[in-house]
Amino acid sequence: MEIIKKIKEMQKRAEELRLKGKKIGFVPTMGALHEGHLTLMRETRKKCDILIVSIFVNPIQFGPKEDFREYPRDFEGDRKKCENEGVDIIFYPDVNEMYPENFSTYVEVEKLSEHLCGKFRPGHFKGVTTVVMKLFNIVKPHIVAFGWKDAQQLLIIKRMIRDLNMDIEILPVETVREEDGLAMSSRNMYLNEKERKEAPLLYKSLLLAKELIEKGERNSLNIINKMQEFIENNSENIRIQYIEIVDTENLQPLKEIKGEILIGIAAYLGKARLIDNIRIKID
Amino acid sequence: MEIIKKIKEMQKRAEELRLKGKKIGFVPTMGALHEGHLTLMRETRKKCDILIVSIFVNPIQFGPKEDFREYPRDFEGDRKKCENEGVDIIFYPDVNEMYPENFSTYVEVEKLSEHLCGKFRPGHFKGVTTVVMKLFNIVKPHIVAFGWKDAQQLLIIKRMIRDLNMDIEILPVETVREEDGLAMSSRNMYLNEKERKEAPLLYKSLLLAKELIEKGERNSLNIINKMQEFIENNSENIRIQYIEIVDTENLQPLKEIKGEILIGIAAYLGKARLIDNIRIKID
Repeated sequence: MEIIKKIKEMQKRAEELRLKGKKIGFVPTMGALHEGHLTLMRETRKKCDILIVSIFVNPIQFGPKEDFREYPRDFEGDRKKCENEGVDIIFYPDVNEMYPENFSTYVEVEKLSEHLCGKFRPGHFKGVTTVVMKLFNIVKPHIVAFGWKDAQQLLIIKRMIRDLNMDIEILPVETVREEDGLAMSSRNMYLNEKERKEAPLLYKSLLLAKELIEKGERNSLNIINKMQEFIENNSENIRIQYIEIVDTENLQPLKEIKGEILIGIAAYLGKARLIDNIRIKID
Repeated sequence: MEIIKKIKEMQKRAEELRLKGKKIGFVPTMGALHEGHLTLMRETRKKCDILIVSIFVNPIQFGPKEDFREYPRDFEGDRKKCENEGVDIIFYPDVNEMYPENFSTYVEVEKLSEHLCGKFRPGHFKGVTTVVMKLFNIVKPHIVAFGWKDAQQLLIIKRMIRDLNMDIEILPVETVREEDGLAMSSRNMYLNEKERKEAPLLYKSLLLAKELIEKGERNSLNIINKMQEFIENNSENIRIQYIEIVDTENLQPLKEIKGEILIGIAAYLGKARLIDNIRIKID
């Protein structure tokens, strides 16, 4: 397994591989790898010749009051996990390599960033699309994997790829969960024991919403209220940031459940901000 | 010479050519080709195996009151000129092909768009960088040519390529001028006989500025005032929009002339909005 830190070197390797006809699969990460990331790697591995993983905690996708400094970093642990998964190359650049002096270019997907996390994390998705565009140009992948755990991110990247005509296939991968339903996330490390016990309530509230819809409920507000009630009645520490029901095309709020919908939830548990979501298709 | 109208087909051809080891040169244009464009093609031809020209009048770089509808279009004439220059492929897409429903992704170079034309054409450079990014992803060039005539555009694209790590070489080409000094532009077609006679005054005012600097003048405002005076004293129809002196790195106004500078001018002559510029390096 190679570890490449320089952009020019990564581009040169990627171009050589493409010229040899190799199919490059790519999993961009911020490190602190868990089973969710490893599943992305395994799914991508099946569809490519060369598997490249990037590890880069991207400063421009964190707000000024967010956890950029605290975000867990463990390159040695990540390296071993990648090695075990048969990763061919880790791209592991410095911040200065990625953001040189006078950096001033940004990629932004409008409309899809308006709701869900976009409303509460101004500039976050602009930071994500910008770094992902950079990584795509550096790693030159044929196929890239993103997880449904970050559904808004996945749908925004998908729209960016379509709108900007990037010749890249996107491979969406289902959320990986702990046994009790908690979605895997590097930020779960922030949870203390008590918080950890309450954390699965987010997913349970999504399952409740699913059940309500299966029983015929079509009013979004009723569903949102019942989810909120459920969490408040069962937890001491969860502070809900949002519960939203949107369409999966443009991520705009729906008053009435129809077509393919996404229910997203974000909540604080102690200092951890956790998100989860569920997709439901109504015939 | 091939004419390709579909994005997927152009990408497929480009990828095939790259896999064969061919070096792709690219000249993006809005058509209405003149000697300036043909010079871009000739310079690029020298450095590539396959020369691709795009012809696309990009709606999103025109303001609501600008000349998108009137902009000259002559595909048959353009086709012949490209054929004469040995162009291999013309990429000639429809607007609907380039901007599908729910298009919502934009690329923006901040700071460099603040002055010169950026100040008077809000959204213009955002439209340019977005379409250029799309065209780069469709045509997959190794080398692209841009003219110094549109200096701000050239420097913005150069910054975009650097910031977003696009693995593309940029070939800057000097402005091509008529015998009397008027910079070639598709918009020169809008000029009537009287306006055409006055048009070279823009370039003459730039040469006056150069002379002043060579004689030791270092105060930007003095230079700008003398350029303005010169144009006002010698023309009846020129309405100056701006004269600005900026650094060539971030395109920020300079009070004092030093380093490498760009003097830009924009003016209306009848309904034609003309621009010109000159670069000067002070040791």
